[in-house]
Amino acid sequence: MAVSGPLRGLTVVDLTRVLAGPYCTMMLAELGARILKVEPPDGDDARRFGPFLGKTSVYFASLNRGKESIALDLKKEEEKEIFLALLDQADVLVENYRAGTMERLGLGWETLHERFPRLIYAATSGFGHSGPYAHRPAYDMVAQAMGGIMSLTGQPGGPPTRVGSSIGDIAAGLFTTIGIEAALLHREQTGEGMKVDVAMLDSQVAILENAIGRYVATQEVPGPLGAHHPSIAPFGAFRAADDHLIVACANEATFGRLCEALERPELATDARFKDNIARVKNVEALKEEIESVLDGRTKDEWLRLLENADVPCSPINNVEDVLNDPQVLARNMVIEIANPDAGSFRAAGNPIKLSAYPESPTRAAAPELDADRARIVRKDGD
Amino acid sequence: MAVSGPLRGLTVVDLTRVLAGPYCTMMLAELGARILKVEPPDGDDARRFGPFLGKTSVYFASLNRGKESIALDLKKEEEKEIFLALLDQADVLVENYRAGTMERLGLGWETLHERFPRLIYAATSGFGHSGPYAHRPAYDMVAQAMGGIMSLTGQPGGPPTRVGSSIGDIAAGLFTTIGIEAALLHREQTGEGMKVDVAMLDSQVAILENAIGRYVATQEVPGPLGAHHPSIAPFGAFRAADDHLIVACANEATFGRLCEALERPELATDARFKDNIARVKNVEALKEEIESVLDGRTKDEWLRLLENADVPCSPINNVEDVLNDPQVLARNMVIEIANPDAGSFRAAGNPIKLSAYPESPTRAAAPELDADRARIVRKDGD
Repeated sequence: MAVSGPLRGLTVVDLTRVLAGPYCTMMLAELGARILKVEPPDGDDARRFGPFLGKTSVYFASLNRGKESIALDLKKEEEKEIFLALLDQADVLVENYRAGTMERLGLGWETLHERFPRLIYAATSGFGHSGPYAHRPAYDMVAQAMGGIMSLTGQPGGPPTRVGSSIGDIAAGLFTTIGIEAALLHREQTGEGMKVDVAMLDSQVAILENAIGRYVATQEVPGPLGAHHPSIAPFGAFRAADDHLIVACANEATFGRLCEALERPELATDARFKDNIARVKNVEALKEEIESVLDGRTKDEWLRLLENADVPCSPINNVEDVLNDPQVLARNMVIEIANPDAGSFRAAGNPIKLSAYPESPTRAAAPELDADRARIVRKDGD
Repeated sequence: MAVSGPLRGLTVVDLTRVLAGPYCTMMLAELGARILKVEPPDGDDARRFGPFLGKTSVYFASLNRGKESIALDLKKEEEKEIFLALLDQADVLVENYRAGTMERLGLGWETLHERFPRLIYAATSGFGHSGPYAHRPAYDMVAQAMGGIMSLTGQPGGPPTRVGSSIGDIAAGLFTTIGIEAALLHREQTGEGMKVDVAMLDSQVAILENAIGRYVATQEVPGPLGAHHPSIAPFGAFRAADDHLIVACANEATFGRLCEALERPELATDARFKDNIARVKNVEALKEEIESVLDGRTKDEWLRLLENADVPCSPINNVEDVLNDPQVLARNMVIEIANPDAGSFRAAGNPIKLSAYPESPTRAAAPELDADRARIVRKDGD
């Protein structure tokens, strides 16, 4: 059932719901770990999130492909005993409750570490397990807004704009994955498990990139960037006759090739555009010059010309375009997930390509609620 | 010099420049690895990216804190010999050239694997090392546009909008980090190194989240989301008397508490808003109702009221707000980086909190170009 990968043989007990935690355990599954998804009696909330194919939530099934499910009510003593027996055979526990919830269940880190000293305990939460907001609720929108990325995203002077995918959850899921693997490496050396505590808010701060640097160096508060880079030009979206395309020149040689391809070689020596500093200063004039030429041909014509000139460029693809892109397909980034209910469907693959492990273009289905109880409780593995 | 962490004792030879690769090796450094940054004779391009504090690029110094630097011209045979001697003592090599560059230098994966069978070789590139676009140039803007996230970001009907930080680079850096740690775990079991090949484009596809699911289930192409969630309401930005704030209700109980806090309990039973499906359908009417109440008080007053009612909410913080937020500070997410040139400065900390390792509120400076040559070549470690 498990994918062939470097984490093969590791067992993860997964208490997580919806997105940040399940994204983390999806990555661990993609790398070969066995994921025992422990759900409340009514299942992960995401099972009820649309859209559906047949009666299957595509949202749930994409994130939980290839995992195994057991339903347990951890407030009942006998079900908690089953849970503790699972931990006895597990390498990693992942949970994404609010801080304090596991302690109230008698399953906090201190308690579990004493009983299972090799177990790695990973917690992904909105604000982490320390600090004044630790007990507050959070969702992706809250993390994106509080963590600053919304202040950088959108049009200058325009309305508030979120990042178009749940980067608040996903970034936390990725940092948790990194933390779990680091803890596994530590355990190889020491035999000891540890606690990994990752907050969505912290993860947003960690991906703000040069916005913090710009602020600490200049004391100017960075604003939304539209579709352009704050300190490189030309580097952003430009309008051709029919549609926008991306042009990105990060050095003089590339800008020279762009000017040649536009048949405006004199722009490269124009005082307003003579180097990157001048171009950033005169970015509006530069945009006007470039778009006045781009207006003469379609986006597709320009993309062909610019590719031939080795100028970094791109269409602004929508999801349909992405799923049909030859490079995306050649990299096995569109996989098929089995779905006994209504045929297989497409989802994003694993971007980590490992030479020691061949990749499959398909993945096992997500489990029905409690479908694997017999096998999980019998402890006979996969 | 190195941070105390689970990767302590591991040596990473780092050929990467600018962002995706240096972000990955920054994370490895945050986890304790020793990073030997091998730069071309004129240094990483990012050393010349503004803004500057004194003569130090804050951009470069943030990403390269605590690393060691040696300048080598890999086109010269005797310098390449020094490089190969470094690999002999290394656990991991990371590079972010275009596909084919390392092979032209005689340093491709096949060659290195034969000579250093335990070495892990990680490549982060725009399009990866296979497929029809493998040899094309790419930057963050290209990955964001081609990978689909720009089609989901921005206002419906509005101009193209990028994510406000370089998520094209950063996501690839995170997936590369996960791949390297997985390869280290594989090496613990087998003694063998492997190649880790991560593309910026693939990484963008992997973070599209439910947009792919929505498309495959409905065949409707998802568009930009403004500041609201596509399938949960109310979940987004709302205007109070003076400014916007975020309100996020993902279930009926929370929506009920919101209606109470707004002193409009009848909204919770209004047929238009009776459940999430109805609210998503009538999202504009819901927004009008909510904003008509919010208009009576300031953002800060509402945040206090909503926090007390346990309704997930947030201001839309800018970078200055983030750097002063009590939770962000309590979590040690604002660290000070030493800078011999112009005093220390603030940067984002490590969001992965590990119970076995205490955290420091400071980090060592980024190296001057070639500053550590003597120590690195003498092989006496740190």
